[in-house]
Amino acid sequence: MRSRDPVALTQALLGGDRRALPRLLSVVEAGGDGAREVGRRVYARGTGAFTVGITGPPGAGKSTLTNQLIGALRQRGVEVAVLAVDPSSPYTGGALLGDRVRMVDHAGDPGVYVRSMATRGHLGGLALAVPEVVRVLDAAGFGRILIETVGVGQSEVEIAGAADTTVVVLTPGAGDAVQANKAGLLEVADVFVINKADHPQVSELERDLAFMMELTSWPDGWRPPVVRSIAVTGTGTIDVLEAISRHEEHLASSGVLDQRRAGRALGELRRVLIARLEQRADAMLDQPGHAGLRDAVVGRQIDPWSAAEAILGQLD
Amino acid sequence: MRSRDPVALTQALLGGDRRALPRLLSVVEAGGDGAREVGRRVYARGTGAFTVGITGPPGAGKSTLTNQLIGALRQRGVEVAVLAVDPSSPYTGGALLGDRVRMVDHAGDPGVYVRSMATRGHLGGLALAVPEVVRVLDAAGFGRILIETVGVGQSEVEIAGAADTTVVVLTPGAGDAVQANKAGLLEVADVFVINKADHPQVSELERDLAFMMELTSWPDGWRPPVVRSIAVTGTGTIDVLEAISRHEEHLASSGVLDQRRAGRALGELRRVLIARLEQRADAMLDQPGHAGLRDAVVGRQIDPWSAAEAILGQLD
Repeated sequence: MRSRDPVALTQALLGGDRRALPRLLSVVEAGGDGAREVGRRVYARGTGAFTVGITGPPGAGKSTLTNQLIGALRQRGVEVAVLAVDPSSPYTGGALLGDRVRMVDHAGDPGVYVRSMATRGHLGGLALAVPEVVRVLDAAGFGRILIETVGVGQSEVEIAGAADTTVVVLTPGAGDAVQANKAGLLEVADVFVINKADHPQVSELERDLAFMMELTSWPDGWRPPVVRSIAVTGTGTIDVLEAISRHEEHLASSGVLDQRRAGRALGELRRVLIARLEQRADAMLDQPGHAGLRDAVVGRQIDPWSAAEAILGQLD
Repeated sequence: MRSRDPVALTQALLGGDRRALPRLLSVVEAGGDGAREVGRRVYARGTGAFTVGITGPPGAGKSTLTNQLIGALRQRGVEVAVLAVDPSSPYTGGALLGDRVRMVDHAGDPGVYVRSMATRGHLGGLALAVPEVVRVLDAAGFGRILIETVGVGQSEVEIAGAADTTVVVLTPGAGDAVQANKAGLLEVADVFVINKADHPQVSELERDLAFMMELTSWPDGWRPPVVRSIAVTGTGTIDVLEAISRHEEHLASSGVLDQRRAGRALGELRRVLIARLEQRADAMLDQPGHAGLRDAVVGRQIDPWSAAEAILGQLD
């Protein structure tokens, strides 16, 4: 498997050889024709693995909890893939994070695969790449796919929210309930985990959270349970897992799972279409014939909206 | 000035009547034809007011510092407009924030105008609306326009970074330097303010910040100064103002001001073009003729990228 050929790598993976994964995912992350080739070949081949998003403010203990969840799932014989999305400056490349090192707990276990994706450049690119990577992990036959992102920006929250079940991890004593609300985390939560539940202000956080939940509506007929955990010791991990399972059963019995997946597929189609149109916009702007229009915008002779209309008029 | 007619309101404003501002800005925020009408009329009429972005993590004291800067600028006879951008869930509408109440210090002063804009729905819409609002404030003749946003997501950081000078406010004891780095705040900073500088861990933050700054390059030939302040008492406000002035002089003498403004104008043209193309994408997706394609994506018969290409093929 030294090949970088997308077709050979995909065939190897679909034939059961997970050693093809690292290289195959590099092809997908690089985008372009290779990624499209892989995408076309794996799209129909997924087994429909259940995906769990794990998000929350920085320092909430998401990676530690993820690690515990892997262990608990492995004990039940479930194979687990983790996609850890690190938003990080292009200047540091995520070197300051280092959370991933903790995942080595499960190194050497062929039933666990951990992939780290760093934010390079636009988050839009990452939002497009994540479902493609998830489909490859799905085609590799993992029973559970965990997607971990820090919940501080709209794009990151959207990535974590694009899972079958989204777990929002909060910690006491950090004003997390208010911050989570501002960040839009309440709207995407299916399960709340109050981590570091041995902290003295735990009931304060639970009260704040209950208050915010009162203000929120739950259109899917599911009110997120609030589960306590202490991820560093493993306390509560089973409770988190059971809350996820109950949500999974609710999704299946209510028909919401199919609705959500259909909605995500159409949402992805829309994002891809927009990304393609953005490329067209850039190509239009770069046309030599539009130099005068660009100068007029810079020189404040024509406003950007009128200039955009002039450029778009040529499409028709 | 009871009219909501964009033309009448714009004429009143350009004639010096700032009482037209609240209604005019509501027209701009509502978007659509009214906003375009106003945009066309004010674009060439700006006086080129200097804009200052003020951003940083939640709780850093941005609003308090902004309030102090208003006071100091007013003492120098400068008229000030403030645009406060509140990212907030569509469910709460920003009601939990309440920072704005502090601005009433300057209520009744006709040389100060404070406008609050809440995030409703997509931040992309806000990123499009902010420069339009700034142009109206510019046309109203304010000498300084302060744009305050919380620096927690890429879109918010972009909004604050789209100013002539961007001030990044951090506080000791909160791991702010690392968080600011992750949020991309270092790249947009022209001036760092260490607020709450009476905190015992102030030198720790300064050391962390100095370390991160070592890893960053400063392409514009300007290394951001680090200024201490205690905004609640007003200590250091003059130092912040002087750091901003020094950056303003650097921008003017180096030619970077014109470069930055030209870059922002072209960036805005690109964003508007993309927004218009997004509208087209939605219209395309909604076409009854594409129902089969949408179903095929949901049913995993065709991947989203291939489907997008099929739809785009019809544009040509």
